[in-house]
Amino acid sequence: MAERGVGSATDGQDSEIATSEVVTTTRLETFSDGVFAIAATLLVLDLHLPSGVRPGGLMHALFTAHQLAEYAAYAVSFFVIGITWLNHHSVFRQVREVDRTTTIINLLLLLVIAFLPFPTQVLAEYLNTGGRNAHAAAFFYSLDMAVMSLLWASLWWHCTSNGCQLLRTKMAAEAVRRSRLQFTGGVLLYLPMLALAFVSAGLTLALQAALALYYALDPLRRSRPSTPI
Amino acid sequence: MAERGVGSATDGQDSEIATSEVVTTTRLETFSDGVFAIAATLLVLDLHLPSGVRPGGLMHALFTAHQLAEYAAYAVSFFVIGITWLNHHSVFRQVREVDRTTTIINLLLLLVIAFLPFPTQVLAEYLNTGGRNAHAAAFFYSLDMAVMSLLWASLWWHCTSNGCQLLRTKMAAEAVRRSRLQFTGGVLLYLPMLALAFVSAGLTLALQAALALYYALDPLRRSRPSTPI
Amino acid sequence: MAERGVGSATDGQDSEIATSEVVTTTRLETFSDGVFAIAATLLVLDLHLPSGVRPGGLMHALFTAHQLAEYAAYAVSFFVIGITWLNHHSVFRQVREVDRTTTIINLLLLLVIAFLPFPTQVLAEYLNTGGRNAHAAAFFYSLDMAVMSLLWASLWWHCTSNGCQLLRTKMAAEAVRRSRLQFTGGVLLYLPMLALAFVSAGLTLALQAALALYYALDPLRRSRPSTPI
Amino acid sequence: MAERGVGSATDGQDSEIATSEVVTTTRLETFSDGVFAIAATLLVLDLHLPSGVRPGGLMHALFTAHQLAEYAAYAVSFFVIGITWLNHHSVFRQVREVDRTTTIINLLLLLVIAFLPFPTQVLAEYLNTGGRNAHAAAFFYSLDMAVMSLLWASLWWHCTSNGCQLLRTKMAAEAVRRSRLQFTGGVLLYLPMLALAFVSAGLTLALQAALALYYALDPLRRSRPSTPI
Repeated sequence: MAERGVGSATDGQDSEIATSEVVTTTRLETFSDGVFAIAATLLVLDLHLPSGVRPGGLMHALFTAHQLAEYAAYAVSFFVIGITWLNHHSVFRQVREVDRTTTIINLLLLLVIAFLPFPTQVLAEYLNTGGRNAHAAAFFYSLDMAVMSLLWASLWWHCTSNGCQLLRTKMAAEAVRRSRLQFTGGVLLYLPMLALAFVSAGLTLALQAALALYYALDPLRRSRPSTPI
Repeated sequence: MAERGVGSATDGQDSEIATSEVVTTTRLETFSDGVFAIAATLLVLDLHLPSGVRPGGLMHALFTAHQLAEYAAYAVSFFVIGITWLNHHSVFRQVREVDRTTTIINLLLLLVIAFLPFPTQVLAEYLNTGGRNAHAAAFFYSLDMAVMSLLWASLWWHCTSNGCQLLRTKMAAEAVRRSRLQFTGGVLLYLPMLALAFVSAGLTLALQAALALYYALDPLRRSRPSTPI
Repeated sequence: MAERGVGSATDGQDSEIATSEVVTTTRLETFSDGVFAIAATLLVLDLHLPSGVRPGGLMHALFTAHQLAEYAAYAVSFFVIGITWLNHHSVFRQVREVDRTTTIINLLLLLVIAFLPFPTQVLAEYLNTGGRNAHAAAFFYSLDMAVMSLLWASLWWHCTSNGCQLLRTKMAAEAVRRSRLQFTGGVLLYLPMLALAFVSAGLTLALQAALALYYALDPLRRSRPSTPI
Repeated sequence: MAERGVGSATDGQDSEIATSEVVTTTRLETFSDGVFAIAATLLVLDLHLPSGVRPGGLMHALFTAHQLAEYAAYAVSFFVIGITWLNHHSVFRQVREVDRTTTIINLLLLLVIAFLPFPTQVLAEYLNTGGRNAHAAAFFYSLDMAVMSLLWASLWWHCTSNGCQLLRTKMAAEAVRRSRLQFTGGVLLYLPMLALAFVSAGLTLALQAALALYYALDPLRRSRPSTPI
C-alpha cells in the first residue's frame, strides 16, 4: 500500500494509478471515520438502567449522582472523540500520501480511540464513589488520553519528516518546528493529568473536557501562516 | 470525496482550498451519517429476550404488553432517527461551508441523537408499568427530543446569520425569517411534550411519532419559494 | 428531499442541483449501507459465552447443540442481511430519483432489517429446545422476513409506477410486469414459512438460508432482457 | 461514488453500465469497510468491568492477569482486523469488476471477520486460566483465523482465474502463480496454529499478532514485478 506513491507513477497508467492512490487516502479516512463514529455511538451502551427503582422512584433514580456521573462521562468522551475526529480530518486533509508507517500509527491511534468506551465505563462506574477507586478510574481514563496524545505527536512527526514529502504542500521549516512543538506540547498537557487523577477524579474529567475544547481550536490552524505556504 | 484528486492539487491554491472545504462538508456528513446509522441500529440492543419463559410459553411471551412496548419504542426511535437524518441531509445540502461553530453545534446534536437509545430503553422498560414511573420515562424521552429541537433551531439560526454566507444560495430575508420561525416553532412543539409526559406516557410516544412524521414533510421545503432563489 | 427531481431542474444552476441530487441518492445508499453493515456485524453480540463451563470442559461447551444453533442463526442472518444489501444495491442502481415515498418505504425496510438481530437471538436461544418454543421462535424469525419481503414488493411497485419515472432507464411494460411478479412471488415464498415454522424450526432456518441463496441470483437480472432497454 | 452523475447516464448505455460496475466495486468496498470498522470497534464490548472490586482495590483490579489478557486479546484482534482491512484494500484496488462469486466469497470473509469478537471474548475469558480451557479458547480463535486465510486464498484464486479478467491490469502467468502460492502459503501458516493452541494459548496469541504484522508487509506487493505489468 505504502511506498508506491504518486511520485513513483512516472511512466504510463498515470490516471489509473493516481486514482487508486486517491482512493487509498480516502479509504483510510473512511475507515477512520467509521471507527470514530462507532466508538462515539457505542458510548451509549455504557449507560445502564438504574437498578432497584421503587414504584414512583424513577424520576429520582434517573438523576442521582451516579447517573449524572454516567451522563457526564458519556458527554465528555463523545466530545473527545468528536474533536479527535475533527483534528484527524484537519491533519489528513494535509496528507497527500499515506505510507505504511502512517497507516500503522493511525491503526494504533484508532485502537486507543476505540478503547475509550471501556475507561469511560470504568470512570462512569466509580466517579462518584470517591476515594482511591475514583482516582484509579480517572487515572485509567487519563492513561488512554495520554497514549492518544503520544500517538498524535508520533503521527505528526512522521508526516513532517523527510522534508514533508507525505504532505500536500511543503511546509516551511519554521512552520514544521512550530507545529511539532504544539503536538509535543499536547503530550505535556496530558501527562500531568495522570497525576491530577490522584487529586480529584471530577476535576480530571472536567479538565479532559477543557482540553478537548482547547483542541477544538485546531492547533494546526494556529501554526499555519495567514497565507497558505 | 472522489474529487479531491491529485491533479487538482497542483494548479493554484484556490481550487485546492475550495476542494478541501467541499471535502470538509462531505466528511462532516459522512461522520454524521455514521452516527445516525449506528444509533438507529443500536436500538435493537434495547430489546431483551423475555425472561422466565415456561415451556410452550414463548409465543405468548413475545407479544406481552411489555414486549409490545419495547417494539413500539424501538420503532418510534428508529423512525425519529431516520427522519432526523433525512432533515439533516436537507439542511446540509444547502450548506456550502462548515465553520467551527456549525461543527460544534452539529457535534452536540449528534451527542443527543446518539444518546437516544438510552431514554428509549428507559421508556421501553417503564412504558407499560403505568403510574409515575411511566411518566418519568416519557419525560426523560421527551427531554432528549426537546434538547434536539433546540439544537436544530440553533444550527439553523447560525447557518442563516451574517447574510447566509454559510449557505450555498443566498436566501431572501423573508425566507430566512420564515424558515427560522419554523425551526423555533419546532421547539415550541417539543416543549409541551415535557408536560404531556405527566398525563400519559403512551400518548407522548404516539405524539413523538406523529411529530417525526410531520417533520418528514420537510419544513425547509415549505419555506422555499417555488423557484430557486 | 423528494419531488425536486433532476427533471425539475430545468433552468439555471443545472450542475449545482444535479450534483446535489446525485448526493441525495448516494447518501440514501450510504445510510442504508451503514444500517446493513451494522446490523450484520451486531449479530455477533447475540453469541454468548457458554455458561457453567467446568475446568477442561470448554472445547465441548463451544460445540454443544445450543452453541451450534447460535452459530447457525448468526450465519444465516449475516448471509440474509448480506444478500439483502446486494439486492438493495441492484435495485437502487436502477433508481435515478428518490422521492419521499421511496425514502419512507426504505426507512421501514431498514427498520425491519435492523430488527433482525432480535429474532435471531430468540431463534438462537430456542432453536434446539424443540417443541412449541422452538416453533414460536421460528415463527417470529419468519415474521420479520415476511414483512421484509412485503416491503421489498412495495418498494418495487412504487418505483415502477407512473411509467417508471423514478428509474434511470424506462422499462418496457412487459418487463415491469415480470419484475413486479417476481417481487410479489417473493412474498408468496415467505408467507408459507410462517406455517412451516410450526412444523420444524430447523427446517425453517435452513429454508430461510436457501431463500437467501435464491435471491443471491438476483431476480432483477433475470427479468432483464439480454440487451439493456 | 460521485462519478455516477446524471449526465453520464444520458450518453449511450456502455458508459452507464461501465459506471455502474465501478459503483458496484466502490459499494462492495464501502460495505466491507463498514463491517471491518464495526467489528474492530465492537471488540471493546468484550471488555468487562472487573467484578468484586473492594474499596480502594480498583487500581489493582484494572491490571490483574485476567484484565491484561482481555486487553491483549482486544489489541491483537483490533490489529488483525485492521491489517485484514489493509490487505482487503490492496486486493480490491486491483479488482476491476466484482462478479457474483467474488461477492459471495467476500460475504463469507466478512462473516468470519465479524465473528472474530466472539472467539476474542472466549480467548479473553480463558487465556489466563491455563490448562485445557485456555487451549480450547486458543484453538477456537485460531480456527476463525484459519478459515479466514482459506477464504482469502479462495478469493485470490478466483480473481486470478480465467486470465485475470476480473483484475484491472492483466498479471503475467508467473506473477499469478507466485501470488497464488503466497495466499496458499498463508493457509499453511495458519493451520499449524490449530495444533500450537494445544501447546500454549499465550504463544498462539503472540504468533497471531506476529502473523498480522507479517501480513502488514503486503504479500501482493512482493509478488509484483518492479515495473507495473
